Amino acid sequence: MPSLTLHPDRLLPADPTTRRIARKLYAAVRDLPIISPHGHVPPQWLADDVPFTDPTSLLLTPDHYMTRMLHAQGVSLADLGVGGHELTDVGRREAFRLLCTHWKAYRGTPVKFWLESELVDVFGIDVVPSAATADHIYDAIQAALSTPDFRPRALYERFGIEVLATTDDPCDDLAHHRSLAQDPSWHGRVVPTFRPDKYLEPATPAWNGLVDRLGDVAGVDTGTLAGWVRAMAERRSYFGANGAVSTDHSHRDARVEPLEPHEAERLYAAARQATVTPDEGDALRRHLMFEQARMAAEDGLVMTLHPAVRRNHHGPTAEAYGADVGADIPMAVEFTNALQPMLEAFGTAPNFQLVLFTIDETVYSRELAPLAGFYPSVYVGAPWWFIDAPDAIARYRRAVTETAGFSRTSGFIDDTRAFLSIPARHDTNRRMDSGFLAELVADHRLTMDEALETAVDLVVTCPREAFKL
Amino acid sequence: MPSLTLHPDRLLPADPTTRRIARKLYAAVRDLPIISPHGHVPPQWLADDVPFTDPTSLLLTPDHYMTRMLHAQGVSLADLGVGGHELTDVGRREAFRLLCTHWKAYRGTPVKFWLESELVDVFGIDVVPSAATADHIYDAIQAALSTPDFRPRALYERFGIEVLATTDDPCDDLAHHRSLAQDPSWHGRVVPTFRPDKYLEPATPAWNGLVDRLGDVAGVDTGTLAGWVRAMAERRSYFGANGAVSTDHSHRDARVEPLEPHEAERLYAAARQATVTPDEGDALRRHLMFEQARMAAEDGLVMTLHPAVRRNHHGPTAEAYGADVGADIPMAVEFTNALQPMLEAFGTAPNFQLVLFTIDETVYSRELAPLAGFYPSVYVGAPWWFIDAPDAIARYRRAVTETAGFSRTSGFIDDTRAFLSIPARHDTNRRMDSGFLAELVADHRLTMDEALETAVDLVVTCPREAFKL
Amino acid sequence: MPSLTLHPDRLLPADPTTRRIARKLYAAVRDLPIISPHGHVPPQWLADDVPFTDPTSLLLTPDHYMTRMLHAQGVSLADLGVGGHELTDVGRREAFRLLCTHWKAYRGTPVKFWLESELVDVFGIDVVPSAATADHIYDAIQAALSTPDFRPRALYERFGIEVLATTDDPCDDLAHHRSLAQDPSWHGRVVPTFRPDKYLEPATPAWNGLVDRLGDVAGVDTGTLAGWVRAMAERRSYFGANGAVSTDHSHRDARVEPLEPHEAERLYAAARQATVTPDEGDALRRHLMFEQARMAAEDGLVMTLHPAVRRNHHGPTAEAYGADVGADIPMAVEFTNALQPMLEAFGTAPNFQLVLFTIDETVYSRELAPLAGFYPSVYVGAPWWFIDAPDAIARYRRAVTETAGFSRTSGFIDDTRAFLSIPARHDTNRRMDSGFLAELVADHRLTMDEALETAVDLVVTCPREAFKL
Repeated sequence: MPSLTLHPDRLLPADPTTRRIARKLYAAVRDLPIISPHGHVPPQWLADDVPFTDPTSLLLTPDHYMTRMLHAQGVSLADLGVGGHELTDVGRREAFRLLCTHWKAYRGTPVKFWLESELVDVFGIDVVPSAATADHIYDAIQAALSTPDFRPRALYERFGIEVLATTDDPCDDLAHHRSLAQDPSWHGRVVPTFRPDKYLEPATPAWNGLVDRLGDVAGVDTGTLAGWVRAMAERRSYFGANGAVSTDHSHRDARVEPLEPHEAERLYAAARQATVTPDEGDALRRHLMFEQARMAAEDGLVMTLHPAVRRNHHGPTAEAYGADVGADIPMAVEFTNALQPMLEAFGTAPNFQLVLFTIDETVYSRELAPLAGFYPSVYVGAPWWFIDAPDAIARYRRAVTETAGFSRTSGFIDDTRAFLSIPARHDTNRRMDSGFLAELVADHRLTMDEALETAVDLVVTCPREAFKL
Repeated sequence: MPSLTLHPDRLLPADPTTRRIARKLYAAVRDLPIISPHGHVPPQWLADDVPFTDPTSLLLTPDHYMTRMLHAQGVSLADLGVGGHELTDVGRREAFRLLCTHWKAYRGTPVKFWLESELVDVFGIDVVPSAATADHIYDAIQAALSTPDFRPRALYERFGIEVLATTDDPCDDLAHHRSLAQDPSWHGRVVPTFRPDKYLEPATPAWNGLVDRLGDVAGVDTGTLAGWVRAMAERRSYFGANGAVSTDHSHRDARVEPLEPHEAERLYAAARQATVTPDEGDALRRHLMFEQARMAAEDGLVMTLHPAVRRNHHGPTAEAYGADVGADIPMAVEFTNALQPMLEAFGTAPNFQLVLFTIDETVYSRELAPLAGFYPSVYVGAPWWFIDAPDAIARYRRAVTETAGFSRTSGFIDDTRAFLSIPARHDTNRRMDSGFLAELVADHRLTMDEALETAVDLVVTCPREAFKL
Repeated sequence: MPSLTLHPDRLLPADPTTRRIARKLYAAVRDLPIISPHGHVPPQWLADDVPFTDPTSLLLTPDHYMTRMLHAQGVSLADLGVGGHELTDVGRREAFRLLCTHWKAYRGTPVKFWLESELVDVFGIDVVPSAATADHIYDAIQAALSTPDFRPRALYERFGIEVLATTDDPCDDLAHHRSLAQDPSWHGRVVPTFRPDKYLEPATPAWNGLVDRLGDVAGVDTGTLAGWVRAMAERRSYFGANGAVSTDHSHRDARVEPLEPHEAERLYAAARQATVTPDEGDALRRHLMFEQARMAAEDGLVMTLHPAVRRNHHGPTAEAYGADVGADIPMAVEFTNALQPMLEAFGTAPNFQLVLFTIDETVYSRELAPLAGFYPSVYVGAPWWFIDAPDAIARYRRAVTETAGFSRTSGFIDDTRAFLSIPARHDTNRRMDSGFLAELVADHRLTMDEALETAVDLVVTCPREAFKL
């Protein structure tokens, strides 16, 4: 069976001269701490430090990057344990075998790169996944997971994580974050992120119940728009007090537009009566986003936008398996006009900061880099989700840098639930950025000294500045 | 006069290490049979096996890739014999001279690559086209065409074609396909493709006549929508019985949306009265497309979409020369929302398959790869028409692979009327895919064994799976 | 302090074989004269040949490529002298120090490449800009500017400029152009460009006053649409008689659409009463653009389009500092449908020529190259503004060439107010085109002879043809 090894030059440019330069740049950043200002690791893992149970529950079932491709190969999501379909011990082993059997399907995707990195670097496994090796790999991972070295806190240490942001509901009591903060044996930094999407979609059936709860948790009557704003401000403040540095927002478009106060109140009242139309719901949502921006300019929480994905594209799958199973499909997005009212109001406010993410790569050179090259508040976010991958990372730097330079970019975010893939993801980005900088040195756009300083800036300075860390 | 040669490494990456890898990959696929699941070669050529008459009628007049560029250089389409403008013997020679005189205009385009490959590989001609060489080349081709080795069936054999799909009207009796199927001296495979576009555009003047004829041919009264559907089902069945594996659809947008039955019937009745507005015609067309999808899920014919081209952009040219003369201009396209109703209904149906082509490259990473990376029915089609060209092929693989891998892509389609260019077109794609895979090996994303297997898959497995061959 | 040098191979491809080819191609074009058919240098500079006053007024304050990035770094535009904020001697020196202090922010942007080229090649300065070197550089430039070698005409000669187009208001008397034309001591060629944007936006407050003035200058009553057209024709004729070869147009969309004569007259009358809505203003503007096209087909002035930028994105900045300070943000653009009415009418007219520029790179392969590959009147304009930069230039050639070849492209335009950066800008493009052609030679798509001829064509033939020079 073919042996699995990781080449030290993987992802570096093929041209020998450029590769030599890239090696030097990569060597300067390879072992720097990991700053992860946006992601989805459950804080409870680190708070409770309970051992992971098995390879499938840890690596496969919750990772929609993996499960979606198996679904495209004709595998049933139920057989992967997705959507609460509980698997037996045998079922988990079978699910992992499905992954290994279809391993070929991941060729050319970052999932292959990440998982192979995890197998070798985290677990010391040296065989390529396949039907023949599935059990061996499963057993090896299972054995490792039962040892103290593979408990969450040990891995956090081993991965060299300096700060890890989670993503949290505004009504969350942040108990795990507080518990970590009060634990004298814990020396890491896990910060919450305020993610209020559901509370900003007044045309959805769940909205009224959510807003009631928001009022209860904040101790504010949310019967009026003013109440909603006060409740939000209170929860943002609670998050800030517990370490949050940013709020995250993902809606179907990027528009942020205030309504006339009277109209806003009217729509809010209608929404509380559950009588808004979808268009009115959108209009009110864009106003509520404007309120979030206004609060951000006051409380200083960095605002991050991840817009324009059609969630749950396939209804029957959503009904059977719930959300976040790989059936969210991106759409074209527009920022220049959509953000204009917000940037008109807050774009040069001293405390306001905005990080703009996109899966629609067309906006990088056309809209995001020009915006970030003018507004001191705007940062171009790193490639996200489907495009957090080597070639897409290279396209991002090529599309953004000539207009916005390096200083106006966010630094890498891993945005992942897959805790064990975090080092491989950051490593991928460090390798690609080293390669990009090496090309600028090779064609004499940067000196080696400039490139070395920039390589470190991208890993350290950019995320600290963009996320106020 | 400069001599024309084909370098064995043409189109392979310049970096020496990567080129060495690419050579090995290309060697593994260079001589594999040609699978051509979508194209426009007239089946009569192979059924009757009549010699081609002259270089201009064969290579220039019907090839709008060539004629459009000459038109852009100021050449009249009439002088090229386009649109039924019959040329004399002298006129054909003059037309060919125009091509050779303007040969410089094709630098950097695939037309140059294809024709030079044909001259050298098919005709053994070793001079570069120019005003000075035009007659020599014309005479050499003319002489070859009169020999048995250059009759259509001999070329089909020589080109190593395994299967060749044509494009056919639903009312076509497929006489040539049937004749080939019954010919014991014929060992190739020529399959029809069901192309019903004109029957799905109820707001066009020709529609009612076409739908009448559809009813006649199918033996079904098309006075009602139900009749139209039955007639279509009958003709799809007839095509399937005669070897068809797919249906092809090209409309101005990609939307597929069912109407309420009552509304569909109402619009159909209005259309039969020629009283639909353009918007109603579009709405009904999207419903008729949904019916095609429903039938596809039943009869298993693969559905291919080639949307979003504005046909006959220049009215006076269309009036003087007809359609397909190079004046069709692409537009932006949207798939995520447009296809959602169809994929909601049939996206996981076991018999349904959909290949999505685009000239709008922005949808590759944003929409098509995410769709194909989730739905087991969806394949990302190879670059088509204007972007069936080396650099665009490289962009396609880079944009699609990281999200959808290789298995979710269609394999190459040549989509051409230019029979003699088919080997050069497939060869271009094999070279570019070899180069892309070589880059993944050079930066250690794939092992050589993985790349070799993938290279063969792209030529053999992908088209067979995507087109059910 | 690090010394500043310019590597002779800068911007050439890293692969040694390709670089060797690129060097030969670049050597063939490096010293060719500069043809600059579109730009913003004030003609008065050359007419009066007055010495430049100081480094900041010359290089920094008027260059929004520089000032926007400093603004994004938190620098106040007032401190850079933008928008009429007069600076003292000390203030100018301080402004220049701000630029040098933030020099790191320009890494990877063409501004770095251009200014470093200017420092070394124009001024002979060999230190990298920084806080420590700011005064030294300032003093060295200041000293140079006081010498005769650095007066505008001397630099024009030294730069090897063959023709330089300015951008001018239709009511401009072109006194400086006329003065140059009549000056026996002047041997250059400075031609005006007719830029009538403001006169085509009937919904703006300034419009009626402008149209009154247009009537006065042209000696035509602009009270009716017919008068507006006659006045425009008169001024176009005046520009043509004074050397103009083109008209330039930049509106928020690319649509050119005639109205019914009655409706056009009605909207014009309403606009003259200042009672048009914004939508009516747009409709009338598109009609007025159609009139410009009609006149272009008659008088033969080349029409250039630079559409789809949202000007003055940040209102407070516009109020404080005026226009053209770096706060203009591009938007998505559509050409295929937008231009269809104009191309239907004039696309094959013998005297009509159209150069299409874009910052939305998605239209290159999708719309612009297909249009230019069919219409003899259409040229694809070089990358402009934010994308006049090395990697974007490479993307442009890769996206356009396979469909439109080289002959259908405009040649480089520098589009700059920064007179001293003109050589560096053209040099950047010559290097990138040499690299692109070298890649086509390295993978055997072009012979060396073909590439050499094409390299020269791109610098000489293309701009002459596209701009009728």
